[in-house]
Amino acid sequence: MLEQLKQAVLEANLELPKHRMVTLTWGNASAIDRDTGYVVIKPSGASYETMSRDDMVVVDLDGNIVEGKLKPSSDTPTHLVLYKYFTDIGGIVHTHSPWATSWAQAGRAIPALGTTHADYFYGEVPCTRAMTEAEIQGAYEKETGHVIVETMRGTDPLQMPGVLVHCHAPFTWGKDVHAAVHNAIVLEEVAKIASRTFALNAQAAAMDPHLLDRHFFRKHGAKAYYGQI
Amino acid sequence: MLEQLKQAVLEANLELPKHRMVTLTWGNASAIDRDTGYVVIKPSGASYETMSRDDMVVVDLDGNIVEGKLKPSSDTPTHLVLYKYFTDIGGIVHTHSPWATSWAQAGRAIPALGTTHADYFYGEVPCTRAMTEAEIQGAYEKETGHVIVETMRGTDPLQMPGVLVHCHAPFTWGKDVHAAVHNAIVLEEVAKIASRTFALNAQAAAMDPHLLDRHFFRKHGAKAYYGQI
Amino acid sequence: MLEQLKQAVLEANLELPKHRMVTLTWGNASAIDRDTGYVVIKPSGASYETMSRDDMVVVDLDGNIVEGKLKPSSDTPTHLVLYKYFTDIGGIVHTHSPWATSWAQAGRAIPALGTTHADYFYGEVPCTRAMTEAEIQGAYEKETGHVIVETMRGTDPLQMPGVLVHCHAPFTWGKDVHAAVHNAIVLEEVAKIASRTFALNAQAAAMDPHLLDRHFFRKHGAKAYYGQI
Amino acid sequence: MLEQLKQAVLEANLELPKHRMVTLTWGNASAIDRDTGYVVIKPSGASYETMSRDDMVVVDLDGNIVEGKLKPSSDTPTHLVLYKYFTDIGGIVHTHSPWATSWAQAGRAIPALGTTHADYFYGEVPCTRAMTEAEIQGAYEKETGHVIVETMRGTDPLQMPGVLVHCHAPFTWGKDVHAAVHNAIVLEEVAKIASRTFALNAQAAAMDPHLLDRHFFRKHGAKAYYGQI
Repeated sequence: MLEQLKQAVLEANLELPKHRMVTLTWGNASAIDRDTGYVVIKPSGASYETMSRDDMVVVDLDGNIVEGKLKPSSDTPTHLVLYKYFTDIGGIVHTHSPWATSWAQAGRAIPALGTTHADYFYGEVPCTRAMTEAEIQGAYEKETGHVIVETMRGTDPLQMPGVLVHCHAPFTWGKDVHAAVHNAIVLEEVAKIASRTFALNAQAAAMDPHLLDRHFFRKHGAKAYYGQI
Repeated sequence: MLEQLKQAVLEANLELPKHRMVTLTWGNASAIDRDTGYVVIKPSGASYETMSRDDMVVVDLDGNIVEGKLKPSSDTPTHLVLYKYFTDIGGIVHTHSPWATSWAQAGRAIPALGTTHADYFYGEVPCTRAMTEAEIQGAYEKETGHVIVETMRGTDPLQMPGVLVHCHAPFTWGKDVHAAVHNAIVLEEVAKIASRTFALNAQAAAMDPHLLDRHFFRKHGAKAYYGQI
Repeated sequence: MLEQLKQAVLEANLELPKHRMVTLTWGNASAIDRDTGYVVIKPSGASYETMSRDDMVVVDLDGNIVEGKLKPSSDTPTHLVLYKYFTDIGGIVHTHSPWATSWAQAGRAIPALGTTHADYFYGEVPCTRAMTEAEIQGAYEKETGHVIVETMRGTDPLQMPGVLVHCHAPFTWGKDVHAAVHNAIVLEEVAKIASRTFALNAQAAAMDPHLLDRHFFRKHGAKAYYGQI
Repeated sequence: MLEQLKQAVLEANLELPKHRMVTLTWGNASAIDRDTGYVVIKPSGASYETMSRDDMVVVDLDGNIVEGKLKPSSDTPTHLVLYKYFTDIGGIVHTHSPWATSWAQAGRAIPALGTTHADYFYGEVPCTRAMTEAEIQGAYEKETGHVIVETMRGTDPLQMPGVLVHCHAPFTWGKDVHAAVHNAIVLEEVAKIASRTFALNAQAAAMDPHLLDRHFFRKHGAKAYYGQI
């Protein structure tokens, strides 16, 4: 079932080591089929070198395994919460990519400092609050999803396709899993350039909002004119 | 038409990912044929992995498409302004290479701190002023060209073959598109070494102007003695 | 003798340059056969490009060569001390991987700043005290082992599978040599992200101990639920 | 003539891009045949991708071309001065490797902060004084050699096989050109780790001299016990 989506999820997962987004077996990508409500996700702790399409696991939105001989990623409950609340997204990626993770560990949102950022993220990339002891000791991965949703409240997830989880690492998403991977790569690049900007200018401030608008809407929405469409 | 120049522009664009100057589809290279006044440029949002010579777009200096089935880079109007004002240059490259972009986001010119810099850039690499709301909301890409020209006033573009656009990223150029790529690679290296120099010595100052002269003119101009010519 | 273990030690050593853990001939990996008490280790100063299984050296816990035509690593006495005191470990890796080495040179333990760290190291990765003149001028490599053991006193080596040796570099270990390599790679990644975290937030503090517990025991011990087991 | 030495110099030059020591055509390696006093060196501005053994240039110690159809490196006069004064060395390498260059631009010697440094450089790697206007405008490359010799006065060049030239970049050397390349790679690694050490601990101080002695003489001199000899 969902063979095409499994192939897309496999390819998305394989993009992660190719673009140096992951170390060892870290990271995972998933996609949802909105018709059935089924989610395809990477198996837990699997090696990128040997992973095949048949290893992808299919779960429903309550986390029941629908198909697959392996255990799904331990982060599956986080993905499921995001799919439930962000009804327009089609794919999710979680990595511990090192630059974005250093912002998450510093507990800092990444301000929009330039057009590289503005081309993909409409404003500062937020960082969640620290989780409570009850959240950590309870359904931890599910609560991670809830704290992301809380942080994103009032924001269009397709205009802000990523977040930093406090003391943890980034999650990104998009209209499909390919876009989610794309946004993971861009977030890492943006985090890197922002760190180096602050090293050169500790007082660097968010960019002019008109420039932010111009660049974001040059690539996104009804008036976009970047690319071949 | 201009098949040889299209090939050179294709190869120049392909040098960018090879030298890690670009992420995803970012960046573009162009060249001008001064006889016809036609400019060959990369198509907008095109993948470096599948790009061919026939995908290159030919435009005139007013931006009209002369040949090509794809839309030219959205940054084409910036390139055209530079070709109009800098009549000695033959090629232009725009990237978001991360070190140079961090200087652009910091709003800082890169001072000439050592001979690596002096071999290619005759003095500090300037950073443009912030653009006005009117410039951003108007013909933005064209105005980006104008603010570069304003910044370079009184400077020989072949002695200072690059600039940082404020809160954006670098543009470089040269006598041909190959030299423009070359200068993009050097600017990124120079930006990297300068950042690390300031991390080691916050008071690092511009180099002795005699040493700057010696190195720049060792490689450029009538008395050059570097290389095989 | 111990052909299978020699093969594992060879492969572990070859993983080091593959994951950019070593420069030139630096670094070494070893494994112990607990039945015989024999240790298999990389020969001293050997090139990773030409090393073969037959080059691996077998020594007993007193450092006598049992088999092998080459001299064992000059760091062998350090490995032997660790095998004697940490009776549950099966493999050891020593590198001068640059991020971890910079913490060792700074004389700073690496605090647990986030889940990437917590997934592998249960608390801060310690840094040994400076060695005394007598230790340095005596049986230096053996004393290096003793100062590590002193530093680890009261700690389960499988919960803290690595240490920074002051003004020197990291040692890591694990239940087998494959795990020891794995931990060397993770320690370098953790050291990198921690350095960048402090650059963004000089006041960054150790993570919530509940989050540390959650992540470490998600992957280790009786209640682990990460991976396919 | 000197075909074996030409081959060694070619291979040494090709090691430089392989180990990411150079960008574009930067950098050069040479070797001396002490019997004839002839020096083999890379041609000026030559591409690493197309360079062959026959492109290597043979010069005498006064800089006269003895054999070769290309111009020798513009840095040849610097090499020749070093061969004249440092009579025990057999090879020299010059790069603009970025970490070492950032120390040269910062005008700082690299202190011996740990054993990685002590294994190859017996004490701090010095940085030359700024050159005078007369030196820069005179026989600049030759004067660069003289200022290096001045800086190294009283030091055994085989115990300190490298130097940072102020506002310029490193030179390294060794008993042969292979060792000179080796030392260039190590100097870059040492410069990188030292920069990161100071970022973590601005008060980091030179290592215990007993530890410096132990590590340097473990690898060098009559009592060396590292490696297979």
